[in-house]
Amino acid sequence: MTEKAEFPVSKVRRYLEPGPIVLLSSAHRGQRDIMALGWHTMMEFTPALVGCVIAADNHSFELVRGSGECVLNLPTAAMIDTVVGIGNTSGMEVDKFEHFGLTAGRGVNVDAPLIRDCPVNLECRLADASLVERYNFFIFQVMRAHAVPQPEHHETLHYTGDGVFMVAGGTVSRREQFRPELLD
Amino acid sequence: MTEKAEFPVSKVRRYLEPGPIVLLSSAHRGQRDIMALGWHTMMEFTPALVGCVIAADNHSFELVRGSGECVLNLPTAAMIDTVVGIGNTSGMEVDKFEHFGLTAGRGVNVDAPLIRDCPVNLECRLADASLVERYNFFIFQVMRAHAVPQPEHHETLHYTGDGVFMVAGGTVSRREQFRPELLD
Repeated sequence: MTEKAEFPVSKVRRYLEPGPIVLLSSAHRGQRDIMALGWHTMMEFTPALVGCVIAADNHSFELVRGSGECVLNLPTAAMIDTVVGIGNTSGMEVDKFEHFGLTAGRGVNVDAPLIRDCPVNLECRLADASLVERYNFFIFQVMRAHAVPQPEHHETLHYTGDGVFMVAGGTVSRREQFRPELLD
Repeated sequence: MTEKAEFPVSKVRRYLEPGPIVLLSSAHRGQRDIMALGWHTMMEFTPALVGCVIAADNHSFELVRGSGECVLNLPTAAMIDTVVGIGNTSGMEVDKFEHFGLTAGRGVNVDAPLIRDCPVNLECRLADASLVERYNFFIFQVMRAHAVPQPEHHETLHYTGDGVFMVAGGTVSRREQFRPELLD
């Protein structure tokens, strides 16, 4: 894969707002895990906030709650079988990095491992846990973003339930129809 | 458009989890509005909860907060110019139903108008406003869903910022690789 560069955290909507499945990696007290996650939303540009639902029966739930950190990694559509495998195994039983042949990388702002095989890695710290008890809803601040410079838009997986994914790839620009203040 | 049928609210993830741009319609005290919204996430299956960020400077913000209701409508990719138009005009200045030639429909559980031109309409009531002040984050319960029976998956728009949308359309099934309890 192309070498990644630092990417402005204020622009991570580019990767998250389209709603792809992401891989959330975390570590705590000698354990690490990866989960597939489709229930997330952008919440603010600056600070860059992302809300994520992490089901409480997921092994990652305790690692994220305990460490207050995670990395959101963007898998491409070509990684579909890895994504499905990650979503259908438990971190209580297997080390998912080893099991799926993924390479852990070191973050700058967090101790949670990056998944180097993904073209985009977002280092996150837990910013607001007030809805964790009630909805398993974690609000993270993206502290640092790493992305391959090209392509700007990756072919991504969008989960619909029942084992079926939509694939997003092609882009359409309507830039000329936007009010200037709505453009980056 | 094909006649819509009632769709189980416990399965609305099919339309929302892929992360498409939705059109949020609302009404309050004789005013109505439509906004384009990409910052949303599923939060629970039953009750069917959806979290949405509605920027406070949007005309819809006061209509939704005042009425405690909205409808989430799924536009198809073919409606891109209507979506862009809706996102680049203010409900303070134009009635977006009239301006964009959209047909308002009547809901069963809410007084907010449905957009009949969209193939999926989700009638929503505000379920939790505890994060509205801090993050403009509204948690809605989907009370009733209406959808055309076919297709199951619509070609949809996924906003990336800067006037550029990704389009999701094709589907890939990995159903045979899923644990049975994860399938619908």
